Amino acid sequence: MSKRIAIVGAGAAGLHLGIYLRKHNVDVTLFTDRRPDEYADCKLLNTVAHHSQTIEREEMLGINHWPESCYFGHYYYVGGPQPLRFYGDLKKPSRAVDYRVYLPTLMKDFVSMGGQIEYGTVSTDDLELLSENYDLVSVCVGKYEMKSLFDTVDELSPFDKPQRALCVGLFKGIAEDETRAVTMSFSPMNGELIEIPTLSFDGMCTALVFENHIGGDLEILANINYDEDPRAFLDLMLDRLEKHHTSVYERIDRDAFDLVNGSKDLLQGAVTPVLREGATTLKNGKQIIGLGDIQATVDPVLGQGANMATYSSWIIGEEIVKNPVFDQRFFEHVENRRHDRVQCATRWTNYKLSSLASLPQEFMQFIGTMSQNRAMADEFTDNFNYPERQMDYFSSPDRIMHWCATYA
Amino acid sequence: MSKRIAIVGAGAAGLHLGIYLRKHNVDVTLFTDRRPDEYADCKLLNTVAHHSQTIEREEMLGINHWPESCYFGHYYYVGGPQPLRFYGDLKKPSRAVDYRVYLPTLMKDFVSMGGQIEYGTVSTDDLELLSENYDLVSVCVGKYEMKSLFDTVDELSPFDKPQRALCVGLFKGIAEDETRAVTMSFSPMNGELIEIPTLSFDGMCTALVFENHIGGDLEILANINYDEDPRAFLDLMLDRLEKHHTSVYERIDRDAFDLVNGSKDLLQGAVTPVLREGATTLKNGKQIIGLGDIQATVDPVLGQGANMATYSSWIIGEEIVKNPVFDQRFFEHVENRRHDRVQCATRWTNYKLSSLASLPQEFMQFIGTMSQNRAMADEFTDNFNYPERQMDYFSSPDRIMHWCATYA
Repeated sequence: MSKRIAIVGAGAAGLHLGIYLRKHNVDVTLFTDRRPDEYADCKLLNTVAHHSQTIEREEMLGINHWPESCYFGHYYYVGGPQPLRFYGDLKKPSRAVDYRVYLPTLMKDFVSMGGQIEYGTVSTDDLELLSENYDLVSVCVGKYEMKSLFDTVDELSPFDKPQRALCVGLFKGIAEDETRAVTMSFSPMNGELIEIPTLSFDGMCTALVFENHIGGDLEILANINYDEDPRAFLDLMLDRLEKHHTSVYERIDRDAFDLVNGSKDLLQGAVTPVLREGATTLKNGKQIIGLGDIQATVDPVLGQGANMATYSSWIIGEEIVKNPVFDQRFFEHVENRRHDRVQCATRWTNYKLSSLASLPQEFMQFIGTMSQNRAMADEFTDNFNYPERQMDYFSSPDRIMHWCATYA
Repeated sequence: MSKRIAIVGAGAAGLHLGIYLRKHNVDVTLFTDRRPDEYADCKLLNTVAHHSQTIEREEMLGINHWPESCYFGHYYYVGGPQPLRFYGDLKKPSRAVDYRVYLPTLMKDFVSMGGQIEYGTVSTDDLELLSENYDLVSVCVGKYEMKSLFDTVDELSPFDKPQRALCVGLFKGIAEDETRAVTMSFSPMNGELIEIPTLSFDGMCTALVFENHIGGDLEILANINYDEDPRAFLDLMLDRLEKHHTSVYERIDRDAFDLVNGSKDLLQGAVTPVLREGATTLKNGKQIIGLGDIQATVDPVLGQGANMATYSSWIIGEEIVKNPVFDQRFFEHVENRRHDRVQCATRWTNYKLSSLASLPQEFMQFIGTMSQNRAMADEFTDNFNYPERQMDYFSSPDRIMHWCATYA
């Protein structure tokens, strides 16, 4: 049987799925509204770290073009009257590449492997026609009204509004720490800052992901306008960094510190975390599959989005190749294999958003124990690859306490 | 952490779980109302074949005491104007032992391994007290009002009444076929007969499991009384066997044919198939786990009940050993690992009950193709071990047709 697959959306999820399918000689068409040569002029899309599990999949797909930009662990800094500083290793390195570089490169990979791309906007109504013309339609767009096609999983979608005011940019003027690593800085009750060594158009730079608590001292960073007065923007940011994120601030050269390419490299906004069902039935009775942001919209604080999206791509690719028919059983096989990771990435991220804002006792115990125990910090750090293992530790206060006890 | 586990019910599910836990040095108490020495006088409990996957678990638990009673495949007979006869091999043999022999032996194994048994009736109300005194309560009784504690999974419980009128007994006077095997005989629109070589108190005998369609020519076998007139009972059964289940009848010595121990070896009745949730929360807020019949009550036509129950036992045993805390995440791990098998055993059995009564076109195609193709018959036969693989073939008419095409 010759299978014809449509993929709507050319983000990491869609491209990984498309490339997997081309690797296995499946006929696949990708629908997107942006051509590869349009990415160079785009505003920053996001800041994404690929953990080693994702890089291994890229390796198998032949699309790991940027191994030199890898980082090797996490520095942790917890502010307060008695600041804590500690480090955890990744067993295998992670890597961050600007998606304005990453995505068009993968589009070219996909086309060179015989994949078809159709350019233009796909509306919700168009999906019915696609579902008649293809054996399976996969939807992996995050920005459109298509999300409403997929039912929300209420019990795993606890928030009705964003939990953080985000300010994300690519910066210069920040020296790297001794080991190339992510720095996770926590300013209790004010916000988190994730600093990610990132490869962009002109080489390595520094992504700063400000996760500011609503109503806190850092929220303003999500709202001030860079272009109106760049110096005022930078001064305010430096002021807040000095006060709240010391371990990053101390590596900054104030004079050199700036966005790499001005406000093109800046993104401000907010995300409401939502988990949705992984499949839906269209009015014509055809079932379509969702993956990536359309299934699980997560806050970027733990860097889970692209990693779980491309995990889904791999699973769906394998099941498309394996299953002769895309009936209910096909969708069951996909969900059976991906749901624990997708749900746990969502739950772990949501747990962190809540606990960092309320600091329950067991969470403080976890931070305290980990800060004194390198093996625990290594395990926690490497488990960014395995959100389901993190949930084995964070699913209840009893589990957290038990985990701490094993390291105490 | 020392874990204390309560198991309510000493059927195969409870005993396999108890023995698994004792193998791993977990403190476990089994609650049952029947002592080992009471089984010899019991009426026949059921007729159960353990497939090789179950026997492998018994081997690992050190409780495979009856290897000599194994059988090696299935003879299939499909009646009608052009009867079909064919055979399928099991890759590794299955085995049937009378549970009046099997269960008390395993109870002794359990006790000899340091397991505690408490004798007496456990009521639904008693579960709360147990849940306060033990770290986890597992419920695996099929006969009590406890079933109502577990919510029915409506979308996988399509029937509100029994689909077959059952007549089950242990017989003598039936010669074995060339290979020791189960015979599955199908009398279209009237019923199925499963003949199982079975080890009982006095050695090998023959279990006949009459699965009679409601309203058909064989239904009467579920209702006539043996003790009122044994000869009339046997003559009626022989008459119906001759007419509907030729491939069994032709091996019967009419004069020797009888229940091995009179009506003690006979069971007549009916089962309404129901799938229930695998866990429930008691009024005191404690969550308890269900396995075996209390989770999935299946018609015996495909012999799935005990095999999936003891599969659950193994999974639950592993997760009890692995998890430090029996919180929501524990129950998730159990369900993630067992739900596909439990659901597919249920769905495959229910599909067979329906399709054997309505004979849809694709089902007839399956029977016809398999009857001409030994490799397909072998695959179907061995997949009695793997109901989830059967559902990969039977989940939709398209899949059945695709399966047949691969063998055509």
